[in-house]
Amino acid sequence: MLILLRGFENILTFVKIVRDPAEIPLDGPRPRALVPTMGFLHEGHIELIRRAVAGSAETVVSIFVNPLQFGAGEDYDTYPRDLERDAALAEEAGADWIFHPDPERMYPPGYATSVRVAGPLTERWEGERRPGHFDGVATVVTKLFGLVRPDRAYFGEKDYQQLQVVRRFTEDLNLGVEIVPVPTIREPDGLARSSRNVYLTPELRPRANVLYRALRAVREAAAGGASPEQARVMGEKVLAEVPEFEPEYLAVVHPETLEPLQEWVPGARGIVAGRFPAVRLIDNMEVWIP
Amino acid sequence: MLILLRGFENILTFVKIVRDPAEIPLDGPRPRALVPTMGFLHEGHIELIRRAVAGSAETVVSIFVNPLQFGAGEDYDTYPRDLERDAALAEEAGADWIFHPDPERMYPPGYATSVRVAGPLTERWEGERRPGHFDGVATVVTKLFGLVRPDRAYFGEKDYQQLQVVRRFTEDLNLGVEIVPVPTIREPDGLARSSRNVYLTPELRPRANVLYRALRAVREAAAGGASPEQARVMGEKVLAEVPEFEPEYLAVVHPETLEPLQEWVPGARGIVAGRFPAVRLIDNMEVWIP
Repeated sequence: MLILLRGFENILTFVKIVRDPAEIPLDGPRPRALVPTMGFLHEGHIELIRRAVAGSAETVVSIFVNPLQFGAGEDYDTYPRDLERDAALAEEAGADWIFHPDPERMYPPGYATSVRVAGPLTERWEGERRPGHFDGVATVVTKLFGLVRPDRAYFGEKDYQQLQVVRRFTEDLNLGVEIVPVPTIREPDGLARSSRNVYLTPELRPRANVLYRALRAVREAAAGGASPEQARVMGEKVLAEVPEFEPEYLAVVHPETLEPLQEWVPGARGIVAGRFPAVRLIDNMEVWIP
Repeated sequence: MLILLRGFENILTFVKIVRDPAEIPLDGPRPRALVPTMGFLHEGHIELIRRAVAGSAETVVSIFVNPLQFGAGEDYDTYPRDLERDAALAEEAGADWIFHPDPERMYPPGYATSVRVAGPLTERWEGERRPGHFDGVATVVTKLFGLVRPDRAYFGEKDYQQLQVVRRFTEDLNLGVEIVPVPTIREPDGLARSSRNVYLTPELRPRANVLYRALRAVREAAAGGASPEQARVMGEKVLAEVPEFEPEYLAVVHPETLEPLQEWVPGARGIVAGRFPAVRLIDNMEVWIP
């Protein structure tokens, strides 16, 4: 166990950082909450931590950039990292300790196991564009649950398909952890908070809320009586207004199975993804409230 | 929860049988031991239960014929089952309660998750002949660990490759369960105890110890200075003496990786499998003790 000591706005902050899985304390106060993150914390993560702290006797934040969930050619090596800042922010939000393992401790030589959710939930959308991504997520979250033994875990709705995948394997494997979803935190112009937003250039940043605006257009069309497909087309029109954005998908889907909808169902979700040349962004929104 | 009441050799036996995963008691005495079985208990299982009882405050026996680990054309439907007898035997051996879920409760509609150990450990031998078998084992054992929350679990060395697979994913996924191996129990003529031995006809039964005799021949050749390959050939000669037996493999392997050996290592294992027309048998033995 390591004590990180630093100055932060003239206040000395102390936060326990556990690096060795063997040193994780298992007999702390209950319920224990886990907030799994890849670090470079933003307001979305802080909201997860605040909710966890409000509802639990102990809150653990894990910070681990999981190599298993990055594909070849993705940004594992360059994914933004700043442990010192993250530790201060997590503590400020009320976290009791941080779990920050080395990749070599999580995946030692001889490591051979993966957790996989099969079927349409992982074959479409992000699963189609990022082969192996959800296997990596399912595997590392299963490991984190085994190591930290939380009673509940907090996930942002920003990564909506991931949230449904986590719910699926947690129930299927009887892991005994309650999955708590937390709504997406947005910038004032609607851009969903994401660690990857730092990649946006000042020129692109004002246009990056096009995903949000497209989802709003879908929701407004739905409220006005459009079918799911008609509403989707209204969203596509908004996306087309920003030529720098290369859309990958915009769909209206079932909130649990993520299958495209022909008819509205309660909780129907709009999901969208695409690229500005330098950064891939995703977003989602509940688009039909009966 | 269901109380099974029956007469057994003039003694009334009571043993709790939990069928609903939601009714598993989690706050019993610790350490808790789990003995995962597919039922139709024989002396090998009883030995597992006895060892678990001797070393633990509470012993749970699971009885579940797991459809996921049977391939197409295998004997899932006809696998022998006798819950009443199993319950009496488990109780007699000291089990505190039995977990006996319905397949529909373990794999409800929408179920989509599997645990997989990749690489040579699962590609060879049983993994090659029974595609998906080890995925099914890894998945159900992960589920049983999640449901029963044991501190340790007992597995027979009879299914040696399975034992190594269980060790692998239990460590890889940080499931926090100690895996305790238990030596194979044999009939007086050396035949390893197996629930599938009931398929042996009276004519075949006396020849069914050919797997054991072949492994003994490997061990004796090793003790006499033979190389792993020379020792293996001595075992093959024994197998060839029984024309009704169709060998699938006989190999001398590393005790953890199950890769074929060119040179002896401590714990080197002989493994053998094959078919009498009506029944497939496997066996294994430590063949080199330095």
